[in-house]
Amino acid sequence: MLKNDPLEQWDRDNFFHASTHLAMHARGETPTRVISGAKGVHIQDRDGNQFLDAFAGLYCVNVGYGHPEIADAIAAQAKELAYYHSYVGHGTEASITLSKMIMDRAPDHMSKVYFGLSGSDANETNIKLIWYYNNILGRPEKKKIISRWRGYHGSGLMTGSLTGLELFHKKFDLPLAQVIHTEAPYYFRRTDQSMTEEQFSAHCAVELEAQIEREGADTIAAFIGEPVLGTGGIVPPPAGYWAAIQAVLDKHDILLVADEVVTGFGRLGTMFGSEYYGMKPDLITIAKGLTSAYAPLSGSIVSDKMWKVLEQGADENGPIGHGWTYSAHPICAAAGVANLKLIDDLNLVANAGRMGTYLNAAMRDALGDHVNMGEIRGDGLLCGVELVKNQDTKQAFEAADKICPTIVGAMAEQGVIARAMPQGDIIGFAPPFCISEAEIDKVVDVTKKAITQVLG
Amino acid sequence: MLKNDPLEQWDRDNFFHASTHLAMHARGETPTRVISGAKGVHIQDRDGNQFLDAFAGLYCVNVGYGHPEIADAIAAQAKELAYYHSYVGHGTEASITLSKMIMDRAPDHMSKVYFGLSGSDANETNIKLIWYYNNILGRPEKKKIISRWRGYHGSGLMTGSLTGLELFHKKFDLPLAQVIHTEAPYYFRRTDQSMTEEQFSAHCAVELEAQIEREGADTIAAFIGEPVLGTGGIVPPPAGYWAAIQAVLDKHDILLVADEVVTGFGRLGTMFGSEYYGMKPDLITIAKGLTSAYAPLSGSIVSDKMWKVLEQGADENGPIGHGWTYSAHPICAAAGVANLKLIDDLNLVANAGRMGTYLNAAMRDALGDHVNMGEIRGDGLLCGVELVKNQDTKQAFEAADKICPTIVGAMAEQGVIARAMPQGDIIGFAPPFCISEAEIDKVVDVTKKAITQVLG
Repeated sequence: MLKNDPLEQWDRDNFFHASTHLAMHARGETPTRVISGAKGVHIQDRDGNQFLDAFAGLYCVNVGYGHPEIADAIAAQAKELAYYHSYVGHGTEASITLSKMIMDRAPDHMSKVYFGLSGSDANETNIKLIWYYNNILGRPEKKKIISRWRGYHGSGLMTGSLTGLELFHKKFDLPLAQVIHTEAPYYFRRTDQSMTEEQFSAHCAVELEAQIEREGADTIAAFIGEPVLGTGGIVPPPAGYWAAIQAVLDKHDILLVADEVVTGFGRLGTMFGSEYYGMKPDLITIAKGLTSAYAPLSGSIVSDKMWKVLEQGADENGPIGHGWTYSAHPICAAAGVANLKLIDDLNLVANAGRMGTYLNAAMRDALGDHVNMGEIRGDGLLCGVELVKNQDTKQAFEAADKICPTIVGAMAEQGVIARAMPQGDIIGFAPPFCISEAEIDKVVDVTKKAITQVLG
Repeated sequence: MLKNDPLEQWDRDNFFHASTHLAMHARGETPTRVISGAKGVHIQDRDGNQFLDAFAGLYCVNVGYGHPEIADAIAAQAKELAYYHSYVGHGTEASITLSKMIMDRAPDHMSKVYFGLSGSDANETNIKLIWYYNNILGRPEKKKIISRWRGYHGSGLMTGSLTGLELFHKKFDLPLAQVIHTEAPYYFRRTDQSMTEEQFSAHCAVELEAQIEREGADTIAAFIGEPVLGTGGIVPPPAGYWAAIQAVLDKHDILLVADEVVTGFGRLGTMFGSEYYGMKPDLITIAKGLTSAYAPLSGSIVSDKMWKVLEQGADENGPIGHGWTYSAHPICAAAGVANLKLIDDLNLVANAGRMGTYLNAAMRDALGDHVNMGEIRGDGLLCGVELVKNQDTKQAFEAADKICPTIVGAMAEQGVIARAMPQGDIIGFAPPFCISEAEIDKVVDVTKKAITQVLG
């Protein structure tokens, strides 16, 4: 790639980037970063800089970068048949095979998979199916969706409403009606610090049930949650949380949507997070890990219980009025087939579990004693490092101090990419499953150096 | 591909198809169609059947199937760098180049492009930007979106609400609040049949203005419309329509969103439909033609006027809280670059204009005199054939008679794919831009035979 080309000017003049300070970027006050290649856990930009990507893109490149098996599958499909739609019973060898591979891996009580492009659109599909389900069952009032504060379920209008983070609501008039939020299972920041994890889980369930009873259980259709809170701060549930929540939902005939966009296909060392925590979802949202981001693909996995009602609905009302032009896109399906096969062939789910244990332990060893350490937490290959201004009071830093963005910037200068989570002083780690112990050691070492550099 | 494999059973057991009678499909009462290859305007299934695809997939494979230039670009990108995100100023050579190529083709008053995956998510982005825009301008009440009955703008919750078709609302509790619908510019089915096209256009504008005044102009943020109604029945606007609508919008400071998912990048014989009809949109939705469906990619093109306010918003509020993991996905961007180049190299925009004129004329010559012909209409390479039970009264057939699905089924048996549009007795045609006169002759011939076969 030529360096004296107009690429940077083209970028500033034409490209509206996601999650960017668009004014500063257009004025040239923030860098344009042109990524040109990647292999394993490393990416490089066109200036020749190399980075160890300890966040796997946006926790999505689960198998790691540059696998020729997936690139070849995409290339072969592009040559054979780049596109045909999947409406009205149409499919391709790749899309049908992938639907079978997904259902082979999903919990036994799940029935079928509907394909989309992103986690956001899969959650749109989920809400449509939930509303349709209750209409077919003759419960037109049972429609509200309960999500959690700090949940992340997408960036659209309804899905951004499900998301429980200020950045995604502010100035966008979200959340919309029909979405309500309940307490985050955020043990570290529980109001009553005397509670044990089990007590806090019971408290969350009691709060949820009180909310359901205030609203009226006959108005609540579903509860959506990530097995581990992701963008909301990498927060695994406290002990007993999902069992306590599941009991409340079952009692009030409320569907459970497990948003497994981050946890699906192995990040916790199990195929799904539902398995890891003993959840029994009615819908499972999948995306990132389905293709390891080599091509855009998402899905909604529907349970037997819901599928039976959808069948009744079709018999009563005809074909379902829901379709994306690119549902089950052949190239994306081919990437999914190759990706799931590679995960098996390289035994990457087990490796994610092992390396996750190693990462969390190493981070605790290196940083557990730091004076600004609030909590180091994580299950599987997810790790959140929450910093505090004052350990005794758990007081946070001032947002204006930009502590975590500064630390993450210092880490990048030393060749490691981590993510400053958008709400709180939290540094997030979610590397590719193929990461080695030596590479984890480097991540931990650079994290420690950068924290020391910024905070002393 | 082996024929004695379990693919069909896998399909029925696992695959939840879009826009399908899912119960009949699961029970094996409707066919599984496995598409295995395609070239030019032809697709083939794994039983060796060939079809001339006169609907270009879902009016998206604009350059035609099987172009090695696009497949090779996808393959090269998959090998070099399958994924990195575009958040916080990141990009790739392909995504930056594509943003430049899009803006070079867009109307002069447009500024930047935000990338998504589907037309639906691009319209989600549009609504978010519209609400943000009015919040930054200090007009928090100016938020409602006006769409048209028979418009098609997506299949999500808000985008399905914008869509003005019964199939997409029924049993899904749509439309949601904040979306209101105005009269379709459907001249053929105007209430007062004495009106000229110009009179009917003026009537639509008067109705729109009355609706705006009833609601209060300070509550209406935007008007969204496809230059030509697509899925709502392939309905070009009556003479003078867009000028009359634009004047009302300008008077009340209401933004115009041109949904060019179908018309963008050449289908009307001009690069955009906005150009064809003299619209001046504040946002343009693009998707299908951007990659000719070789990979999933959409976009929201933002005007200078809106961009200035978005910059003000960023300076006041920081980075924008909106992002899709797969925004500007490298493989999809590479497909877009190769596709737009191919459209230029093969002069396909001009060909779409010429072949569109030929298709519409040939259809009128062949079928204009049929006793059940309501109207044959179209601009560019779009053609809608609307049938009626009674020409004098324009009485429609009974829905239960399934006239158009039966005709389209008879056409498929003769090797031509057209589409029975979902609302009304309308057969839709939108072939690839590379279609030849001889291929159009075949389409018209088979259409005539099938109509004669079914209706006499």
